[in-house]
Amino acid sequence: MAYELYYWTGIPGRGEFVRLALEQAGAAYVDISRNFKTMREGAPTLMAFMAGENLVHPPFAAPVLKDGDVVIGQTSAILLYLGDRHCLAPADPVERLWTHQIQLTIADLVGEAHDAHHPLGGNFWYHEQKDEARRRTEHFRGHRIPRFIGWLETILARNPAGPEFLVGGALTYADLSLFQAVEGLAYAFPKQLARTLAKTPLVAALRQRIAEQPRIKAYIESDRRQAFNTDGVFRHYPELDV
Amino acid sequence: MAYELYYWTGIPGRGEFVRLALEQAGAAYVDISRNFKTMREGAPTLMAFMAGENLVHPPFAAPVLKDGDVVIGQTSAILLYLGDRHCLAPADPVERLWTHQIQLTIADLVGEAHDAHHPLGGNFWYHEQKDEARRRTEHFRGHRIPRFIGWLETILARNPAGPEFLVGGALTYADLSLFQAVEGLAYAFPKQLARTLAKTPLVAALRQRIAEQPRIKAYIESDRRQAFNTDGVFRHYPELDV
Repeated sequence: MAYELYYWTGIPGRGEFVRLALEQAGAAYVDISRNFKTMREGAPTLMAFMAGENLVHPPFAAPVLKDGDVVIGQTSAILLYLGDRHCLAPADPVERLWTHQIQLTIADLVGEAHDAHHPLGGNFWYHEQKDEARRRTEHFRGHRIPRFIGWLETILARNPAGPEFLVGGALTYADLSLFQAVEGLAYAFPKQLARTLAKTPLVAALRQRIAEQPRIKAYIESDRRQAFNTDGVFRHYPELDV
Repeated sequence: MAYELYYWTGIPGRGEFVRLALEQAGAAYVDISRNFKTMREGAPTLMAFMAGENLVHPPFAAPVLKDGDVVIGQTSAILLYLGDRHCLAPADPVERLWTHQIQLTIADLVGEAHDAHHPLGGNFWYHEQKDEARRRTEHFRGHRIPRFIGWLETILARNPAGPEFLVGGALTYADLSLFQAVEGLAYAFPKQLARTLAKTPLVAALRQRIAEQPRIKAYIESDRRQAFNTDGVFRHYPELDV
């Protein structure tokens, strides 16, 4: 039975980390968000699913993966599940946990990328918090992006199996998440990311290596891959990328 | 060999979620933070450990658990590890993942509790962002706290094994994390939390049930348990709790 992915229509968002794992696995899945044209049109179905009173494991937020009777929320938990099932994580328990630790840290980076444009929270529009966003983003851009990407560079440099992938000698979901996070930053903060990647060649090379994986390449060239936009987690506001 | 816990001196912070699991497990551990009197005094040792060039799995941030040669960062990853080793998580893989999903969502709540007093980020002092904190906290207090705690109430109400614990019929690390998150909110936002808990009796009862676990009770009464303060993740600023 095909997986079902529940997420907001119209943005790559956190759902994209799940899509990349499903695509790399060659797994059959139904992306429920594609049944609708706009976020507004898709929201009632997503919210009704998450609020279903029959769910013993109700998710707090999207994305949500449904695998038959198993319903999983939290992007990193979904990837932990898919990693085991589709050889996207090492079997060794310590390496498996290390892969998850990297994923959780990338999730923190994604959270900070969101907060950069919404420091006062999701209940205010961006135009209502532009000045606060500018103040918050200065540090995110100049310190946090270099620190997160620099940490990933260190991991690659120290990988005993070589710098081709983050963990061991094979692709894991953490590599896919690195790719997506870097793509998001390249969209949102192109100037800052170019400065950072010039100093982190191993991360830059891994981003390219993931883009060239046959299934990822086919996915990116398909109409299933959605462009970043200013409704999503990663947003390009030129005034925030100086 | 005893575990070693590396964390900031002087605050319960995210390290406390790990301490509670270690205490409930009755595990031998050395809390490195206790070798020092102040955060400033402890910081060099913590930072030198995390920056160690010999670490194949360098952590991005504290807390960090060291178990012999295994070094683990990210609170939720540490709890995943301890849960398996000390019967603080179910053996069934779907229930084990569900426990972790709850933990990840509590971690999101903890992150939002931090951002409430530091919406512009950690590079500004609170007194430099008091107005922004007030604006952000209004929504956190009125909507996000009730939504997170209400979600935990729903989980308890739907647990097929009964509402005594979050997952199945036995205590897991997710219950300990619920306890700590509720304690933190009770310190930081006593007025709002009282309003919320009045509507979520199962969460209120679980908080009490955890406090009465013999090992947790002994820990709370010991000098190892640290009080919350305004250097930590949960902070009480009366102007933010109206």
